[in-house]
Amino acid sequence: MKTSLKAPIVAVNFKAFSESTGKKGILLAKICDEVAKETGISIIVVPQTTEIRKIVETVEIPVFAQHIDAVAPGSYTGHITAESVLEAGASGTLINHSECRMQIADIEAVVSKCKKAGLMSLVCTNNLPVSLACSLLKPDFVAIEPPELIGGDISVTTADPDIVKNTVVAIKNVNRDVRVLCGAGVKDGKDLTMAIKLGTEGVLLASGIVKAKDPKKALLELVGRR
Amino acid sequence: MKTSLKAPIVAVNFKAFSESTGKKGILLAKICDEVAKETGISIIVVPQTTEIRKIVETVEIPVFAQHIDAVAPGSYTGHITAESVLEAGASGTLINHSECRMQIADIEAVVSKCKKAGLMSLVCTNNLPVSLACSLLKPDFVAIEPPELIGGDISVTTADPDIVKNTVVAIKNVNRDVRVLCGAGVKDGKDLTMAIKLGTEGVLLASGIVKAKDPKKALLELVGRR
Amino acid sequence: MKTSLKAPIVAVNFKAFSESTGKKGILLAKICDEVAKETGISIIVVPQTTEIRKIVETVEIPVFAQHIDAVAPGSYTGHITAESVLEAGASGTLINHSECRMQIADIEAVVSKCKKAGLMSLVCTNNLPVSLACSLLKPDFVAIEPPELIGGDISVTTADPDIVKNTVVAIKNVNRDVRVLCGAGVKDGKDLTMAIKLGTEGVLLASGIVKAKDPKKALLELVGRR
Amino acid sequence: MKTSLKAPIVAVNFKAFSESTGKKGILLAKICDEVAKETGISIIVVPQTTEIRKIVETVEIPVFAQHIDAVAPGSYTGHITAESVLEAGASGTLINHSECRMQIADIEAVVSKCKKAGLMSLVCTNNLPVSLACSLLKPDFVAIEPPELIGGDISVTTADPDIVKNTVVAIKNVNRDVRVLCGAGVKDGKDLTMAIKLGTEGVLLASGIVKAKDPKKALLELVGRR
Repeated sequence: MKTSLKAPIVAVNFKAFSESTGKKGILLAKICDEVAKETGISIIVVPQTTEIRKIVETVEIPVFAQHIDAVAPGSYTGHITAESVLEAGASGTLINHSECRMQIADIEAVVSKCKKAGLMSLVCTNNLPVSLACSLLKPDFVAIEPPELIGGDISVTTADPDIVKNTVVAIKNVNRDVRVLCGAGVKDGKDLTMAIKLGTEGVLLASGIVKAKDPKKALLELVGRR
Repeated sequence: MKTSLKAPIVAVNFKAFSESTGKKGILLAKICDEVAKETGISIIVVPQTTEIRKIVETVEIPVFAQHIDAVAPGSYTGHITAESVLEAGASGTLINHSECRMQIADIEAVVSKCKKAGLMSLVCTNNLPVSLACSLLKPDFVAIEPPELIGGDISVTTADPDIVKNTVVAIKNVNRDVRVLCGAGVKDGKDLTMAIKLGTEGVLLASGIVKAKDPKKALLELVGRR
Repeated sequence: MKTSLKAPIVAVNFKAFSESTGKKGILLAKICDEVAKETGISIIVVPQTTEIRKIVETVEIPVFAQHIDAVAPGSYTGHITAESVLEAGASGTLINHSECRMQIADIEAVVSKCKKAGLMSLVCTNNLPVSLACSLLKPDFVAIEPPELIGGDISVTTADPDIVKNTVVAIKNVNRDVRVLCGAGVKDGKDLTMAIKLGTEGVLLASGIVKAKDPKKALLELVGRR
Repeated sequence: MKTSLKAPIVAVNFKAFSESTGKKGILLAKICDEVAKETGISIIVVPQTTEIRKIVETVEIPVFAQHIDAVAPGSYTGHITAESVLEAGASGTLINHSECRMQIADIEAVVSKCKKAGLMSLVCTNNLPVSLACSLLKPDFVAIEPPELIGGDISVTTADPDIVKNTVVAIKNVNRDVRVLCGAGVKDGKDLTMAIKLGTEGVLLASGIVKAKDPKKALLELVGRR
């Protein structure tokens, strides 16, 4: 699975939007699957927890969980274990998303658990020092998302190209095996092209696709105009 | 759905045990479904979040979520919304389980959201004052679970029959429409019989069934020897 | 101490404003003390945790903590126990402030701990059902603070007089011994007069006093124009 | 202040023990002050938040807070700001103690805030990767505390000398300016001697001193038998 994830990578976080809940989420995943096949771009879908299994059964592209709790299987209620996500067919998980920040000991535990379980780990970070610290925990991916830009109209690659470039260099200096994505404000093909130019292997985005009037068109604009 | 939930009610919390993860969870749900049909007892299954939809598609008995976050659909990552649980086909949810305690404002918000969405709400509580306070929030069910007995060998109905009896009376005094279950240490048919005798409408339990060598036998012992 | 707290009561939450940090907080407490003596109004100061002891040594009016953690003395780091707050000389504590929401089991534990320790308990609530639920936990005070009005320009007593009035009636119906305050947007004497007229015994406020250019003048305007 | 903190360093975390609450905490701080003067050993006291100011006024050795929240001064209730701790006279703070784990973005924010404010930062960590990650955030100190040994009878330096030694080497490799302490099970002079021998500059401990029948004797045994 991992080897097939060649750059550029587009990870679509479905979040808890009503546009990605239930059947709408399954439909959205199908669109991502189609676009991946049509364009050859690596697309990862990150659906709501309740739809992971159904979407795994429906699409061929990798499916990530939005979050995993740092607990082993056991006497926990309401927790999402790596094991349950794996059983549902997921290929990986987001970790420490800005809307789901985690304690550092828990990030380390989940990254390590993913490695053992064969799940890909994608840790979200908010600035340079945190990106470096998380890179030392050896996740597969780090996604840089300056929180002040998330959900905004300006792409991180436009607002702060040097931050992206310098963070990529600094991360590689600390752990050359970590693959870097960037997020926040990413909307169209120019943003993706710029993200690649700045040294990342792709983007993590959400509302730009999920809340688009025509998600397929939005996705094609993102991956096509290159 | 609600009207069919006549006492005695047995709610089986699958928790995050490996015995209830993935396919094992689906199998366990089928066993609960069979026993419900064979005995006429109302059984609710409470699977891991990733398996809610699949289990809803597999069994005919009510399926509850283990937890719902107090957020509306929107820009949240890793959160479980009432809407996603409803779309996956669940009939209700646990709220404030001892392993997933919630802020009071959030308990109120989720109970209220469940009422609007047509989901049943089952609030877990730890002592008399908290049980009364939660009953005023008008959930469908309150499940009394003294934390010192959870997972233990002695049933709450044996260890502390008066607590159960008095709590039921006090709850009904505050809100006669709330249905009361009890949990903690519940294992066999005697415990269930006693729970009903003390004024509750059934039990919430987990390891006694989920981790039993033969869950079907354990369930039948629970509901049969009456 | 408790008996001396006759209505109208004005509780000033210092929050973590720079205007109430360190020496500025001590000065602000002195101003509250002066105004209490000059006007005969019951004023409670709620300073930052680090200044509780110093302010207790400096003023004669009651000093409340902003928060107490639901833990007994023991192996905890960074937690604020009822015992430490009591030893520092505080007379009571806020509980479940909108900026420090607590789990219901913890609210109950802290209210109960306060009762044993001789500390007054003041539970903040956000709407009618939560206010009723918390009143059943038998705190000394409940302070109604609709979150949408906190920090705003419109007083809760102007924006929503019926909410205040109805909540007071409903609370008294559930527990006649609970004393009710209201908060959110309270600024001047008219607001306090209205709060009393609507059935409360006073107000809980913060920025209106703490961030005022002249806190003494602001306090006198609050308690004087009656 | 910093320059005077020469190794060996003994940081005494008062925790929330009743033996360190209120006047007992002040007395304990005096004992630490005496022993520091008598032996020339650098001792840091880490009292409960309510007693920081009083203890700063009473002793000459450095006083650290047990925790600082990652918020700037503002509209927060119950939060402990760096500013309030600084105003109370503290010289530094623990960060991410095992009993008060923090999100990585918050650890970074507090370390950075401490640097600006002139407070020393001491980040607690639980294993090698987390220790390295936190070292990249450039705190003054990292204290290695394997959680399975905390509060136990076996010192980390006896149970796992290689972990301590290897962690020190690895940390220095990542950031040579970070000073390393170790904790967990540290009791007597042999443990401290061993800690120094393994490459650390001292220890962080709690119950061994705070709950000792004779804390002065316990401290002297720790620092004297060398």
